[in-house]
Amino acid sequence: MIHTIEWTGQSLRILDQTRLPEATVFQELKTVSEVFTAIRELKVRGAPLIGITAAYGLYLAMAGERFDSREQFFQRLEEQIRYLASARPTAVNLEWALRRIQKALQDAGLTDPNQLTERILALARHIHEEDRLRCERIAQNGQALIPERATILTHCNTGILATGGIGTALGIIYRAVEEGKKITVLADETRPLLQGARLTSWELFTHQIPVTLICDDMAGWAMRKKGVDLIVVGADRIAADGSTANKIGTYSLAVLARHHGIPFYVAAPLSTFDLSLAGGEAIPIEERSALEVKTILGRLPIAPDGVDCWNPAFDVTPPELITAIVTDAGIASPPFKESIAQLFQQSKTTKKLEGEPL
Amino acid sequence: MIHTIEWTGQSLRILDQTRLPEATVFQELKTVSEVFTAIRELKVRGAPLIGITAAYGLYLAMAGERFDSREQFFQRLEEQIRYLASARPTAVNLEWALRRIQKALQDAGLTDPNQLTERILALARHIHEEDRLRCERIAQNGQALIPERATILTHCNTGILATGGIGTALGIIYRAVEEGKKITVLADETRPLLQGARLTSWELFTHQIPVTLICDDMAGWAMRKKGVDLIVVGADRIAADGSTANKIGTYSLAVLARHHGIPFYVAAPLSTFDLSLAGGEAIPIEERSALEVKTILGRLPIAPDGVDCWNPAFDVTPPELITAIVTDAGIASPPFKESIAQLFQQSKTTKKLEGEPL
Repeated sequence: MIHTIEWTGQSLRILDQTRLPEATVFQELKTVSEVFTAIRELKVRGAPLIGITAAYGLYLAMAGERFDSREQFFQRLEEQIRYLASARPTAVNLEWALRRIQKALQDAGLTDPNQLTERILALARHIHEEDRLRCERIAQNGQALIPERATILTHCNTGILATGGIGTALGIIYRAVEEGKKITVLADETRPLLQGARLTSWELFTHQIPVTLICDDMAGWAMRKKGVDLIVVGADRIAADGSTANKIGTYSLAVLARHHGIPFYVAAPLSTFDLSLAGGEAIPIEERSALEVKTILGRLPIAPDGVDCWNPAFDVTPPELITAIVTDAGIASPPFKESIAQLFQQSKTTKKLEGEPL
Repeated sequence: MIHTIEWTGQSLRILDQTRLPEATVFQELKTVSEVFTAIRELKVRGAPLIGITAAYGLYLAMAGERFDSREQFFQRLEEQIRYLASARPTAVNLEWALRRIQKALQDAGLTDPNQLTERILALARHIHEEDRLRCERIAQNGQALIPERATILTHCNTGILATGGIGTALGIIYRAVEEGKKITVLADETRPLLQGARLTSWELFTHQIPVTLICDDMAGWAMRKKGVDLIVVGADRIAADGSTANKIGTYSLAVLARHHGIPFYVAAPLSTFDLSLAGGEAIPIEERSALEVKTILGRLPIAPDGVDCWNPAFDVTPPELITAIVTDAGIASPPFKESIAQLFQQSKTTKKLEGEPL
């Protein structure tokens, strides 16, 4: 499989996603400012992948400097965290990954700045490996829901281009194919930013998985005419009751699936859940620029300049429209409030046993 | 209001809809092959407008030739009808308009080929005027369904850019605004060809009617969050039971509307009905080029070159998802088989009284 992100020993090798699908171009990032630019210009995207990239970026930032004391090291670390986090102010995983490293360094009991710097690299690799394993576990857990032959509809991009591993929803598909299941994928193009067309159809096509690209407004007719067996999507944030914020268009798919009696699955790691949110109403929805709607990728205008647009980046699918949520810790089924709480309970136990704090 | 089609005396002046919304460019069509191309390349689109264009095109076809006999005239007429009808095989109004002219010519009792040719022009003008009046009647009949204040969601384009008058679904909106109702329109962009973005948002914006453009995958979320009061769409073909073939995406909207308890209306003249089709299964669906899906308007590639696409131009909404069908002869309500038959019965009577055979 193509590696979208790889630590080479001295630099971070990334696949430049802004060049897809026309060209497969890798770029070596050797300095923190190159990492900053890659994140800001969306060369690297997808919540988990951004966090991993930033973690390696923090190492590159600190490895290029000399420090006389622990205090000086942590002062500079704070500056570099703020700098990197400012590359995508709304991407919460970005700052979260960096603060997690900061916390682990503070707890490490090290005083030698060189040792602290080297520890950042170890932590970045750990975050990367952790995400890779999360994807593997989601893929494994999802297999129980995938028949031997299936036409699967998906939305947006949730694969190797979004994570540090094989992906969430797409990871389940990769694993199913690996296990010899006969899978056909229908990929929604996912306006406005077309992640389904540009990224999902590219990565499945590149890995020779049968994929048919459709426009978003064809999804309902595909369910009626194409024999869609199931739908699986990712998630940006899941509340305690299972309400799932995901890329705009997800909610429509869930309603259409219900009408056609098609199972609707969400795939996401436990780290995507925010149990402080009781339900979907509490999830904030980012509204983005009208330009994304009235142009294609800022490159081709498709509507009059002055026309009003509505551009919610996400929607929230209520739990009653979700058949199951596949996580790295197992599958949650309705009633979700109870099953999600149970997964978290089990997961705490597991983590204690495995002894894997960052 | 802007004239989208106009007979100049020797040629047909059309607004080239493929140039919208960037440029308002008119084109003079002087030969039948120019008309064929304009229809094929969607420079002229919308079921009624295609029929009108083809009617003028048939005149241009026959006016350019000399005939020795009535038989020779009708033989050539048949060839030209087949040629023009092949420009858009699914567009029933296209062949229907041409066959109607053929029938009227056969019934006319004329033997002079020159007189027959000139009669085609008179018939084309009649079809044009007839469509203008149909739009007015649909707009009038639809008012009973439009409250004083309404947020109306629509799909594709069904206005002055689709008809010989103010339109079908959009005609109802134009009339409502004229009558002082407070209307806000949500326009689906309507991939793959973006008629909602390029045409509907353009024509409503140009005529100062409040319109908000959304991507197709936002429609369900708009129904949940924006207080959509009703949906009104056009139709390409309606079967005897009310099954409605319309632009791809219509079926999804109807399902979404049902889930949200929102009335779903179809607006179309009786000429769009094909009573020889008992139900939706009998309606043929045109599948168009994959290029429309994997590029934007052939101008911007958005997916890998070799990827498969599915591109049905239309879908069929079953009668059980339709609240009412607004026609030029009145409103049909469920059960549609009976109400549609009744409208046709009344309409025959009316036509006899008004004395307007073609």
